[in-house]
Amino acid sequence: MSRTVYLNGEYLPEEEAKVSIFDRGFLFGDGAYEVVPVMDGLMVDVEPFLVRLGNSLSELKIDWPCSKDEYLEMNRQLIARNDLVEGFVYSQVTRGMVPQRSFGFPENTPTTLMAFTQLANHSNNPLAETGIKVVSVEDIRWKRRDIKSIALLAQCLAKQAANEKGGYEGWMVEDGFVTEGTSSSAYIVKDGVLITRPLSNSILAGIRRKILLKLAADHQIRVEERPFTLKEALQADEALMSAASCSVLPVVELDGQRIGDGKPGKVFRQLRALYLENARKNAIIKIAG
Amino acid sequence: MSRTVYLNGEYLPEEEAKVSIFDRGFLFGDGAYEVVPVMDGLMVDVEPFLVRLGNSLSELKIDWPCSKDEYLEMNRQLIARNDLVEGFVYSQVTRGMVPQRSFGFPENTPTTLMAFTQLANHSNNPLAETGIKVVSVEDIRWKRRDIKSIALLAQCLAKQAANEKGGYEGWMVEDGFVTEGTSSSAYIVKDGVLITRPLSNSILAGIRRKILLKLAADHQIRVEERPFTLKEALQADEALMSAASCSVLPVVELDGQRIGDGKPGKVFRQLRALYLENARKNAIIKIAG
Repeated sequence: MSRTVYLNGEYLPEEEAKVSIFDRGFLFGDGAYEVVPVMDGLMVDVEPFLVRLGNSLSELKIDWPCSKDEYLEMNRQLIARNDLVEGFVYSQVTRGMVPQRSFGFPENTPTTLMAFTQLANHSNNPLAETGIKVVSVEDIRWKRRDIKSIALLAQCLAKQAANEKGGYEGWMVEDGFVTEGTSSSAYIVKDGVLITRPLSNSILAGIRRKILLKLAADHQIRVEERPFTLKEALQADEALMSAASCSVLPVVELDGQRIGDGKPGKVFRQLRALYLENARKNAIIKIAG
Repeated sequence: MSRTVYLNGEYLPEEEAKVSIFDRGFLFGDGAYEVVPVMDGLMVDVEPFLVRLGNSLSELKIDWPCSKDEYLEMNRQLIARNDLVEGFVYSQVTRGMVPQRSFGFPENTPTTLMAFTQLANHSNNPLAETGIKVVSVEDIRWKRRDIKSIALLAQCLAKQAANEKGGYEGWMVEDGFVTEGTSSSAYIVKDGVLITRPLSNSILAGIRRKILLKLAADHQIRVEERPFTLKEALQADEALMSAASCSVLPVVELDGQRIGDGKPGKVFRQLRALYLENARKNAIIKIAG
């Protein structure tokens, strides 16, 4: 059955949702996006998602397409209209349609807002038991990875390169250090310490990352925010990844080498359980109607 | 009057040319583009444009959307249907529409091909007499600038930053060296020598650049392909830029400082005349019908 999606104020069958070829999202990758997880039909981790979208739009000097309440209502409507129980709502704001192709920003152009739902498994993902394989890939992205922009070609190429080598995810490496996954945050565990790269322009400020670091600290798991090398990752006791589309998953193999004992580790299990519990607890946004 | 544009096999009024919100061009900036100049209603510099598009598609592992002859015919049709005398034809190929958003490449998905005409002044541009102002901006792009991809957000931000400081164009600077303009190739002239950065992944292989270097060599203008610093550019005798959308233009001011005597220089004048003459001479592709 066709999904109902949102485009510029209208709820439409997905087949009918089309944008102009002159939309700057299509011409330049000139826009920002967000993904909010849905569990039990409810949005989770809502507040940081709105904050991050605001940051991306602000850095790109794109206006909010509507109020934050309207934005949340759009997400709620999509969940309700598609009977989404578990998955995510993807939303994207671009700088809008331009009559002439020109790199500089247009004036007084309405932004384009679109959103759709997609199924994903957060709470009962078999990969949480089997673990996933990761392949290292060179990080060739631009220098403003803190902006969640739709200009994702480097990430697509990196993910594809990892997929072709049997990886479920690619970990991007720059100057010997892991930056992050192509569409996820990256962590290792060594001697009980959870290690992940500190925030900067080099990585996206992962929402799951922020929540996991807080949950770890609250539960006596030591956290070190510092860059780690690919070599360290290969010698880690555990490795894990997090993203809006998959919550938290264990990495059991990196570049063909087993991580730790090759099974999901203790710190991973604890953090995943804490994350899911926290997400459910804070899923305060009810389905409309 | 509305332009006639091309989209996936159809010639349409521009208002009707729309792509799915699930097109990977719109979701990821996952596509390549080309611009072919038009003078006297004829395409110019045709052969290298097809070669470069082929290179971009090959690097991105996107199939050609049609044969090269059909591609040229599409360009010809757009020129004819829009009575374009001088300007360019812009064309874009994306990896097509996907049912689910996922970074890795889809299989057996038809590419999206769109194209449109736009007016531009090549042969009689007043800027060739007045010269243009350039502002330096940091080059924050990804590492595969040799691919003419539509993921152009960094270039848009750079152009806008330059525009806001009064620049017609921005020259991007990395490690003290000028890489190229945000949508053009960059050159300086010192002691009669034309200096421009050598080809690598750091810059796009400009078609006008290639032609100008050949014309220079053919006419006893010495050429040095080497990186030049912003400081060198400020102390140059002349500076110039080239692009499909504007042919060759003189840069008379950089970061508020006059270049040379602040007027279009002798080498620029010679190269511009040679370029326009060569372009006309080689505009062999006649309008159909």
